[in-house]
Amino acid sequence: MSRPAFASWLSQTNDVTQTFLNAGQIPDLINLAGGLPDPSIWPVEELAQLAHKAVAEHPEAVLAYPPIEGFAELRHLIAQRFSTGGLTLTRQNVLITTAGMQGLDLVGKALLDQGGLIAAQSPAYLGALDAWRPRLPSYRPIRLQDEGFDPVAALDGAQFCYCVPNFSNPTGRLVDLPMRQAMVEAAQQTGTWLVEDDPYGMLYYDGAPLPRLLELSATGKPGPYDGPVIYLGTLSKGLAPGLRLGWVIAAPEMITALITAKQGSDMCTTGISQQMAIDAFKTGLPERILPHILDLYGSRRNALCAAMAEHLTPWFDWQVPQGGMFVWARAKDPALDTDKLLKVALSHGVCVTPSSVFDPEGQDRGAIRVNFTLNPAERLAEGTRRLARAVDALLSGKA
Amino acid sequence: MSRPAFASWLSQTNDVTQTFLNAGQIPDLINLAGGLPDPSIWPVEELAQLAHKAVAEHPEAVLAYPPIEGFAELRHLIAQRFSTGGLTLTRQNVLITTAGMQGLDLVGKALLDQGGLIAAQSPAYLGALDAWRPRLPSYRPIRLQDEGFDPVAALDGAQFCYCVPNFSNPTGRLVDLPMRQAMVEAAQQTGTWLVEDDPYGMLYYDGAPLPRLLELSATGKPGPYDGPVIYLGTLSKGLAPGLRLGWVIAAPEMITALITAKQGSDMCTTGISQQMAIDAFKTGLPERILPHILDLYGSRRNALCAAMAEHLTPWFDWQVPQGGMFVWARAKDPALDTDKLLKVALSHGVCVTPSSVFDPEGQDRGAIRVNFTLNPAERLAEGTRRLARAVDALLSGKA
Repeated sequence: MSRPAFASWLSQTNDVTQTFLNAGQIPDLINLAGGLPDPSIWPVEELAQLAHKAVAEHPEAVLAYPPIEGFAELRHLIAQRFSTGGLTLTRQNVLITTAGMQGLDLVGKALLDQGGLIAAQSPAYLGALDAWRPRLPSYRPIRLQDEGFDPVAALDGAQFCYCVPNFSNPTGRLVDLPMRQAMVEAAQQTGTWLVEDDPYGMLYYDGAPLPRLLELSATGKPGPYDGPVIYLGTLSKGLAPGLRLGWVIAAPEMITALITAKQGSDMCTTGISQQMAIDAFKTGLPERILPHILDLYGSRRNALCAAMAEHLTPWFDWQVPQGGMFVWARAKDPALDTDKLLKVALSHGVCVTPSSVFDPEGQDRGAIRVNFTLNPAERLAEGTRRLARAVDALLSGKA
Repeated sequence: MSRPAFASWLSQTNDVTQTFLNAGQIPDLINLAGGLPDPSIWPVEELAQLAHKAVAEHPEAVLAYPPIEGFAELRHLIAQRFSTGGLTLTRQNVLITTAGMQGLDLVGKALLDQGGLIAAQSPAYLGALDAWRPRLPSYRPIRLQDEGFDPVAALDGAQFCYCVPNFSNPTGRLVDLPMRQAMVEAAQQTGTWLVEDDPYGMLYYDGAPLPRLLELSATGKPGPYDGPVIYLGTLSKGLAPGLRLGWVIAAPEMITALITAKQGSDMCTTGISQQMAIDAFKTGLPERILPHILDLYGSRRNALCAAMAEHLTPWFDWQVPQGGMFVWARAKDPALDTDKLLKVALSHGVCVTPSSVFDPEGQDRGAIRVNFTLNPAERLAEGTRRLARAVDALLSGKA
């Protein structure tokens, strides 16, 4: 007897996310690879009390099966938080998800037949590629920063366009206002859905936040939002990832399709996290902890960039990101293969993410993503020195 | 402009699960349709304390991203709970899931290319059909109770066989020991994976529990289990569905594939529920509340069956189930269309589930599933009377 073959997409995947989630277990490794928050930002005792209160005061809601689409009050609160002068959201526009990753999975489930076409900001978030891989999609890479970039040509004919306007993972890049407007206009013109993945939208260290694509696509018509943007939000960066609490904001017809997709994925999101989110929003908890997060991560961004300027300038180019969690550094020497660099770096006690995992084709081996949120300044500096030694060893053939 | 089409599976689905989850909102409706627990079984204050303790005492585990596969301690505890004399399980055999529904979704993701063949106990759990529908599978219905049923022929060539040996949803049927052994032997002979979905395994009201397919497939070899059974468990029936906490037990190669599938689904299951499950298992909480659950549901099973015997005998045949949550009743008159009966029943203030939703082809319109766990005896009796009036109205053409 032989066992049936696994589904074919499984032969196309990689285990890099798990490698990085587990990397913390290597002794004294400096992990600059993941996208992990600093545990000091978590309001532990307040969250513990919210967890108790959720179960003790709302047992018949929290311990039962919540509605597939999420608690009505939470959907309403999120609709309120994201409504603006021109943008009217109701809870019909909101689906609660088991964090941002499930939002990506559900969008793929609702819109992709096998081989369906995705226009994706390139390089693209690894987790989005993971979420859509089981549907064996085809990709049209789009590079918003390239001269002559044509948003209409980029979107036309795709099932959806994937975009991270605020501090993209992996590049940390902020999409400017004219390009945001152009993308929204292209979505309105072509009909293509525009997925705005926004886990980092609260993490602006410099400058005022730009308007979301969601807001830019509002028409000012009365009634619930009916535009082309599918907005994905999460509490993972601004409160705590362990809550596994996210949301999708979109036109009601899209929310209806996503509810059907969620029904067969995990039926509903845990009531405890949903009720904790309700109480957190009502007491302004995310707003209260945000100044500390911005101080901490902003200073770490500065520390990493200073260390990189001191130790990595000979080998890499990068821009200082205005927010988010990552610096994206491209090797000056095309012969510097960052897949190989990762292996050498691990043996030098530091971990970064190679660019190949952010390329649907796995071809780009010329850049690295460096995280600055998890480690204090001195560890960022030491990690950068280790990385410099690893580059030196690799290029000199001593690795 | 026109928007891209939704994925093609969405045109093949139905909204019956959502209809039933929401049915509680119709005034005075007696809901015999869902598979909902009675809220009185929940140890609310103890769960509230566990929720507080999880966050307060384990913040760096619970509020961070848990490992994709789940907390090591929880995997270990589940491995221990399901190990028997001949069955050696380690945490390599265990994946934590966002409740049982996600286990079904991940199995489909790992094993089904588009159109892949599933051998499924017929009629089959609606949620399993929902979970696999996006992969547009083909079904080989298998009827274990039919004379001349051949397990090897049933399993041969399928990617997996889906089976609910303990009080199947919808039929409430218990698969007997000889058939369990035959199914396991067929899986060993053909190589086909054997999915043992076991949400109701603790709900035996009469008689001693039969051995699981998982246990029957153990070879007694040292080392972690490596057999063909993929066992799906959950805390939804024996503790509380709102925790969204389930597990898969399977051979390590299957667990590895399912971890990759989970990575792109929701990344990981909430740490709060995982830590609550650890503490619940360590303090024997499920075992402490089980006697009350069995008393309550067993007496309600008796009450429903007595009311059915009084009011529905002219129109339906059924067996008294030895456990689980449902009675499955087949119409004596083939002209009684239970899809139509549902509509008439709703207008008479009672809701049951028609057989069509448990048939992958949607063809079986001759039976109903009746739940007895949610309502007290007097409501079960009143619901049965309403159902009898609805049948009478439908058959007499007065509906």
